[in-house]
Amino acid sequence: MVTLEHIWAAQNVLRGVARVTPLNPAPTIGKNVYIKSENLQLTGAFKLRGAYNRIHRLKPEERAKGVIACSAGNHAQGIALSATKQGIRSVICMPAGAPISKIEATKRYGAEVVLVPGVYDDAAAEANRLAAEHGYVFAHPFNDPDVIAGQGTIGLEILEQLPDVEQVIVPIGGGGLISGVACAIKSLRPDCKVIGVQAAGAASMLASRLAGKPAQLDAVSTIADGIAVKLPGDLTFAMCEKYVDEIVTVQDDEIATAIVTLMEVEKTVAEGAGATTVAAVMFGKVDVSEKKTVCLVSGGNLDITTLSRVITRGLSKTGRIVELTTKVPDKPGFLLKMLQVVSSLGPNILTIDHQREDKDSDVSSCIVSLVLETRNAQHAQEIEAALLENGFPLLHK
Amino acid sequence: MVTLEHIWAAQNVLRGVARVTPLNPAPTIGKNVYIKSENLQLTGAFKLRGAYNRIHRLKPEERAKGVIACSAGNHAQGIALSATKQGIRSVICMPAGAPISKIEATKRYGAEVVLVPGVYDDAAAEANRLAAEHGYVFAHPFNDPDVIAGQGTIGLEILEQLPDVEQVIVPIGGGGLISGVACAIKSLRPDCKVIGVQAAGAASMLASRLAGKPAQLDAVSTIADGIAVKLPGDLTFAMCEKYVDEIVTVQDDEIATAIVTLMEVEKTVAEGAGATTVAAVMFGKVDVSEKKTVCLVSGGNLDITTLSRVITRGLSKTGRIVELTTKVPDKPGFLLKMLQVVSSLGPNILTIDHQREDKDSDVSSCIVSLVLETRNAQHAQEIEAALLENGFPLLHK
Repeated sequence: MVTLEHIWAAQNVLRGVARVTPLNPAPTIGKNVYIKSENLQLTGAFKLRGAYNRIHRLKPEERAKGVIACSAGNHAQGIALSATKQGIRSVICMPAGAPISKIEATKRYGAEVVLVPGVYDDAAAEANRLAAEHGYVFAHPFNDPDVIAGQGTIGLEILEQLPDVEQVIVPIGGGGLISGVACAIKSLRPDCKVIGVQAAGAASMLASRLAGKPAQLDAVSTIADGIAVKLPGDLTFAMCEKYVDEIVTVQDDEIATAIVTLMEVEKTVAEGAGATTVAAVMFGKVDVSEKKTVCLVSGGNLDITTLSRVITRGLSKTGRIVELTTKVPDKPGFLLKMLQVVSSLGPNILTIDHQREDKDSDVSSCIVSLVLETRNAQHAQEIEAALLENGFPLLHK
Repeated sequence: MVTLEHIWAAQNVLRGVARVTPLNPAPTIGKNVYIKSENLQLTGAFKLRGAYNRIHRLKPEERAKGVIACSAGNHAQGIALSATKQGIRSVICMPAGAPISKIEATKRYGAEVVLVPGVYDDAAAEANRLAAEHGYVFAHPFNDPDVIAGQGTIGLEILEQLPDVEQVIVPIGGGGLISGVACAIKSLRPDCKVIGVQAAGAASMLASRLAGKPAQLDAVSTIADGIAVKLPGDLTFAMCEKYVDEIVTVQDDEIATAIVTLMEVEKTVAEGAGATTVAAVMFGKVDVSEKKTVCLVSGGNLDITTLSRVITRGLSKTGRIVELTTKVPDKPGFLLKMLQVVSSLGPNILTIDHQREDKDSDVSSCIVSLVLETRNAQHAQEIEAALLENGFPLLHK
């Protein structure tokens, strides 16, 4: 098990390397809520801390060989930059379909990227094969004491920045981050609660806790790709059992809403995994009414080409974007009349799709789909009611 | 003219009200570049400073009547929150088509919102009418000494946070922000350059400078709606003439690229106006090679429903999103073959639009449009070349 001494040692190693990230109140999220912004860490995520500490502790003969890792995400960038800063070769295996932005960022930080056809497991197998063939040190993303100790330095920072903190909420994927943070906090402040958050579609640590041992999920599915882990580690499982008070889950549309809220209100960019802690507060999974609470926003590497889908999902969840489909007689004037009914209630019309040929249309009518920006769910309902009253049926597509 | 004493007095008024916003290095934007983050100001923009100072200086009989303003943007929110904090009534006239998010935010800050049919000028006329009818004080967004003095407090903060600053870049719309900032900086540090940035589609202060007097543009067009101003004020014009060294312009696609870069690299959300200063550095409009430079990011109220368009534009500008249209024989297997040619070069395919009926298609072929995520412009060219080599012509739509 990792101890507080390991984490103190890691803090010493990381001094002047990792950023001390800001911790600020976020009153619009909740009265007692603070955000610890590891999305502002170098490489855009906390992974740098553990990766740097891991590489720092390599033996001289290991340093000469170099490190290898398998990741399409923040671990890749953390290892790449940490190795480069310490003058060590790094090789990263990624599934060939990884987002281009992540591939390019990893190369920019100085790693050799090997694109492996197939999925994550294929890339992992190739990394193990290359490690055996060339003698590279395999750097595990979470189930490693030096990695856990590095992540734990965030716990020390939280206690320095907000000494009277009463509750800390931390995302859980493989469990490396929360193992370190919880160890630091519980060792120094046993009265402070530590709560883990998982994506409901990838709740392997929660399943493991219920099973009493590390349990593997058959499949994971979540927009929070940074915490989509099928099987937690044995070390991280044991540390979570020892130090974590409770594990809650959040749905993808709750995560998307949290991402949108962080952008609109806090003007900050969080990735899915990073926004889970804010989602847990916003959707009442954690009670913050009486406890000074820190939400750890673990990273900000949200793939920008998928951001618009996330935004749409977040706005839909809160009724601020609504899609309506109706049927309009295929005669001059009726499309205009329908639009007048809608416009009179003041939404912004984002898109109109007007189809003559559709399985739901008959010869004398057209199908019109509208995407509207509305004030809230009630506003959307008012518009639906007005359409019905004026003879425009609502179709469910 | 506003003087340094006015700005000091405003700083006193704003103490404990406006946030002292962070100023941090942004080495990935440029070696000597720092960002002053007024997007993290209360209400998401600098406007709060001037608005609060303006309202603070009302006479008792004016306070009893309340204030009115015309704005669909940051001025509205600044006035609303400032008035509410000082227990004063505020009325905001907005064009009826203003973004719902801005209308709702202004109401949330406590203003009465009057939606006026028509454009900005109609809303302004209505605000003047209501002011005359009810005796409200009309709060001008920029051409007002108390407003300018409030914005000038940002200049004082920059000098406190980075005493050896050599160059400050500031967005210009009506000129209130730069008038205050430049007055503060030039009064205390005459050797520090102050450079203004305008959107190329709304460069009214630059036109005025060339004309030697405030000059009105017939029309303005830019994604930076916060600085889309047709006519600068006489006071702000005079202060720019006295204090501003140079005015440069940036194009909309440069602004979009800066917004995307700030999101991806700095994990921060800037609106178009706020990102102009970063665009000016990224696209070489201002030389930062030898001067410690602050980019003032003035606000972060980017309308989230339009964000995806901005992102697409920013990614297109740097060759990271490309749209290709080609013609494919309408026979089994050819669509697949074309996609294999594309995929072999490794872009992500974002959308495919496959049209049988199109003015450019003949009976035996289909038009296929692809939107691809590519590494850069060169990667996009490689894909185009591969399509041509394999007999798929490129159509320009």
